[in-house]
Amino acid sequence: MTPAPERLTLGLPAGRRPPAGAVEVFRVVGNAATVRGDILAVEEPLEICVVAGPPDARVRRTLSVTMRTPGHDAELAVGFLYSEGVIRSAADVTRAEPCGPEIGPDGARNVVRVELAPHVAFDPGKVERHVATTSACGVCGKTSLDALEAACRVRPPVGLPVIPAAVIHSLPGRLRDAQPAFERTGGLHAAGLFAPDGTLLAVREDVGRHNAVDKLIGAELLAGRLPLSDRVLLVSGRASFELAQKAAAAGVPVLAAVGAPSTLAVDVARRFGLTLLGFVRDGRFNIYTGGERVTL
Amino acid sequence: MTPAPERLTLGLPAGRRPPAGAVEVFRVVGNAATVRGDILAVEEPLEICVVAGPPDARVRRTLSVTMRTPGHDAELAVGFLYSEGVIRSAADVTRAEPCGPEIGPDGARNVVRVELAPHVAFDPGKVERHVATTSACGVCGKTSLDALEAACRVRPPVGLPVIPAAVIHSLPGRLRDAQPAFERTGGLHAAGLFAPDGTLLAVREDVGRHNAVDKLIGAELLAGRLPLSDRVLLVSGRASFELAQKAAAAGVPVLAAVGAPSTLAVDVARRFGLTLLGFVRDGRFNIYTGGERVTL
Repeated sequence: MTPAPERLTLGLPAGRRPPAGAVEVFRVVGNAATVRGDILAVEEPLEICVVAGPPDARVRRTLSVTMRTPGHDAELAVGFLYSEGVIRSAADVTRAEPCGPEIGPDGARNVVRVELAPHVAFDPGKVERHVATTSACGVCGKTSLDALEAACRVRPPVGLPVIPAAVIHSLPGRLRDAQPAFERTGGLHAAGLFAPDGTLLAVREDVGRHNAVDKLIGAELLAGRLPLSDRVLLVSGRASFELAQKAAAAGVPVLAAVGAPSTLAVDVARRFGLTLLGFVRDGRFNIYTGGERVTL
Repeated sequence: MTPAPERLTLGLPAGRRPPAGAVEVFRVVGNAATVRGDILAVEEPLEICVVAGPPDARVRRTLSVTMRTPGHDAELAVGFLYSEGVIRSAADVTRAEPCGPEIGPDGARNVVRVELAPHVAFDPGKVERHVATTSACGVCGKTSLDALEAACRVRPPVGLPVIPAAVIHSLPGRLRDAQPAFERTGGLHAAGLFAPDGTLLAVREDVGRHNAVDKLIGAELLAGRLPLSDRVLLVSGRASFELAQKAAAAGVPVLAAVGAPSTLAVDVARRFGLTLLGFVRDGRFNIYTGGERVTL
């Protein structure tokens, strides 16, 4: 057997361009192999470039290159800059748009240029150091949480909102229903923003959970809707320190995950008064912190 | 209902310390809540500190802080330094050990100090820039792959090893059987290194897939067993660019994932002659590249 899968047409009608990520693969079941079409999650690097400073001394810096799924890239960049403490509101951003050469047939570009208003204090060295340490601010949880506390400018309202358990049970299904078919193939993470009654307000997808959350938060920031103090954030995978940190920074009171939380995610939730729910699936979930926001 | 889960004893015998990550949670099934013990995946920051340079001019630099599950930290640091191109073999490392204050009852520390041999050329600025860009080297896939090609000093042997499909089907079960019970709770990723006949040689676990792989590769490097040209690497989640990059750098010919690969992971596999398998579970898998190493 010498299979060598190549990008093929997947039997699409003549002239129809295959979707991004389309490949042919050998599907092995037991001892039998067949050729079939498959759709991969697209992963491409995104350079986040910031232009900032007073009118007579603008500087341009690349702050980060993150591996992401193309789409909603300006929102991703803005959400990232918010989580990193570079910007605080839509008024801090004068322009955010993709630039650089097109890298695929769908016109995607791998650079986003974010122009900051002249009043925004910008210390690229500080952000670069922060980014280099993978969003951790110190070498023990306490130090990290203290630094995060300094960066968090909003707090969820105590005890609010209140969410019925039945609504929480319904969230994963609502998120799944909102995803296009090819994105249900298992290669993409999703993040959904919900109202307390379970209405899905926005969904973003990405190969990286943190990117999907940055895209959501960036969109809300650009629409002037931060802090998200009356919202529930659902992520399709696990809840790590990084996701809890992003939720806390955006003032989200309820973070729900289809998978497991980590110890440090629970620590962040406790410190910042978040409700943290894990294993939200199949009519069950665990409450790790902030159970007063859940009614049975 | 006003649940406020705290760290409790989980009904352990008097005097027995609860395992790391032990918490009490409210388990909600339908509309009924019960209190039960749960074990969380431990997530803590690890600072990787390098001491390098000639005897009369040693420098000490923190290269990265990564969020990881404590354990095998020296191996993680060494594997990371190998993937980043800082070291090439065990001879480049004179010492690698945890240091700094203990951060928990189990004696874990959140700093690893790696001392490099005087002959190792060390450019911290280059590594910091590389780390800051989340392992990407440019703003398009081609640039990244070119940079990766320059860093890859080994290539898997063409066409070898050859693995029967039946062996591949057996890998996820073998990996799962080797994980302690609490690590099967869904909060940890696992990476396993196998011989071509399916013998499990090593397994490492972590909240981050890339850390689990760095721990494996670091252990093999310290044992003088790189390149891994007769090995199969299985990861419990998805195969991203970063994991394919680490496999390529270590010379692993077969990368298998329980989840889906991304487009860029397939590009890396194609460029470096890797066999890339995805959705390896339940008696099935997909071959994305390098099918000549699989026999039916």
